[in-house]
Amino acid sequence: MINRMNVLWILAHPEPRSLNGFLAAEGQRALRAAGHEVEVSDLYTMDWNPVVDAASYAHDPAKRFQVAQAAKKAHESDVLAADIRAEQQKINRADTIVVQFPMWWFGMPAILKGWFDRVWHLGYAYGKRGPHGEWIGYGDGFLAGKRALAVVTMGGPAWLYGERGIHGSVDELLFPLQHGMLFYAGAEVLPPVLICGADRFTPEEGETAFKELRERLLAIPGAEPIPYRTQNSGDYDEKLVLRPDVAPGMTGLGVHLT
Amino acid sequence: MINRMNVLWILAHPEPRSLNGFLAAEGQRALRAAGHEVEVSDLYTMDWNPVVDAASYAHDPAKRFQVAQAAKKAHESDVLAADIRAEQQKINRADTIVVQFPMWWFGMPAILKGWFDRVWHLGYAYGKRGPHGEWIGYGDGFLAGKRALAVVTMGGPAWLYGERGIHGSVDELLFPLQHGMLFYAGAEVLPPVLICGADRFTPEEGETAFKELRERLLAIPGAEPIPYRTQNSGDYDEKLVLRPDVAPGMTGLGVHLT
Repeated sequence: MINRMNVLWILAHPEPRSLNGFLAAEGQRALRAAGHEVEVSDLYTMDWNPVVDAASYAHDPAKRFQVAQAAKKAHESDVLAADIRAEQQKINRADTIVVQFPMWWFGMPAILKGWFDRVWHLGYAYGKRGPHGEWIGYGDGFLAGKRALAVVTMGGPAWLYGERGIHGSVDELLFPLQHGMLFYAGAEVLPPVLICGADRFTPEEGETAFKELRERLLAIPGAEPIPYRTQNSGDYDEKLVLRPDVAPGMTGLGVHLT
Repeated sequence: MINRMNVLWILAHPEPRSLNGFLAAEGQRALRAAGHEVEVSDLYTMDWNPVVDAASYAHDPAKRFQVAQAAKKAHESDVLAADIRAEQQKINRADTIVVQFPMWWFGMPAILKGWFDRVWHLGYAYGKRGPHGEWIGYGDGFLAGKRALAVVTMGGPAWLYGERGIHGSVDELLFPLQHGMLFYAGAEVLPPVLICGADRFTPEEGETAFKELRERLLAIPGAEPIPYRTQNSGDYDEKLVLRPDVAPGMTGLGVHLT
């Protein structure tokens, strides 16, 4: 168990005077007050470039740009854009990653999606192989030993994002982030902190949300992760398809939970 | 049935010499050759700004920026950023929308996510009410009467994105786009054109993919949409939660299909 966390807090919201801004500032303060280190990537303040481009990977524009290969080559030749390298160094220093954003159109704001698109490239975030030549991923990877927590505000009421709500279940809407990015990379992903009805928050409700957030943040070291099946659990066959005897006959994103 | 389509083709790929570039150019050519109109938003070539910001909505930075309200106000006062207005005019002119992109980290490239984030704002894309004060959405909205088709390339083999593949089912990974953005806005959403193994495509495989794409494009007017349940189908209760007697006891994104 980690006693003193080194947290990287990634925030994607355009307005510091918003509920998100309040929760970020207070959450970071609460962590520091408890003796934890907090490093922040406030993507809007940083004016983060979310668009994958040849220039970030020092790719010759006269040649065809194959994103993954260009990124890998730049990484190996140490010519990655400085902003990408800075984020990777922050990730490497951290043992805990908090990803905070308002849900826009059932996913991350573009500035945050583009943080993953650019920083999590081949050769850094994936494409490594184990001792037997096998792909490494889903339960192991460059985030192995680190914990991750999503903090998400949603405009509408909770029931719309419930198991049978019309927007789709929030756990499944967050599957690309939590399973496809964080767990894929080896992190232990904790159940998200979800704050509904964010469009009409009163200051009192903001305080209540912060109290819950504070508890969840301080409990990170001992919390139980989301029980996603690991790639090497034996639940998947050699093509990484769930074996017929595991959750037999079932489909849907939920089958990837034990 | 539409005989002559007015297609808006939105493309998000940084390299015209890629498989995506090839499929976009050939697909558009095939549509035009068959007598259809095609307007293109090639987001990389346009240098599209994907980041929601106060400036796009002519919002006074001294005041707290509430994204949805600021966008609505700008829309009503006709002071929206010119790039957003241009996209809305293209949408209004079209009867058919093609959204083409490579799947990056189980979703859209940031430049495309930010197209939705900025263009699909309150007052244009949602927030309208029907004659009885009810919210309009999921089967009705500003895209009512239009058809939409996603064209998606994926790096890995198809089974990884199958119903029990480790990446999660592609239909569910596309749920935020197809159900949450396109169907929500009233479009009839056709089953996506999926091209797997895009990382290692030969020119022959590219030709095969184009032939399939061409067939699917020309068949748009008569194709059967994905059977998402509409908001007003009677399947949802007044809180927009699926009624207990509809797909009883079931959960997962699949419950929103009839």
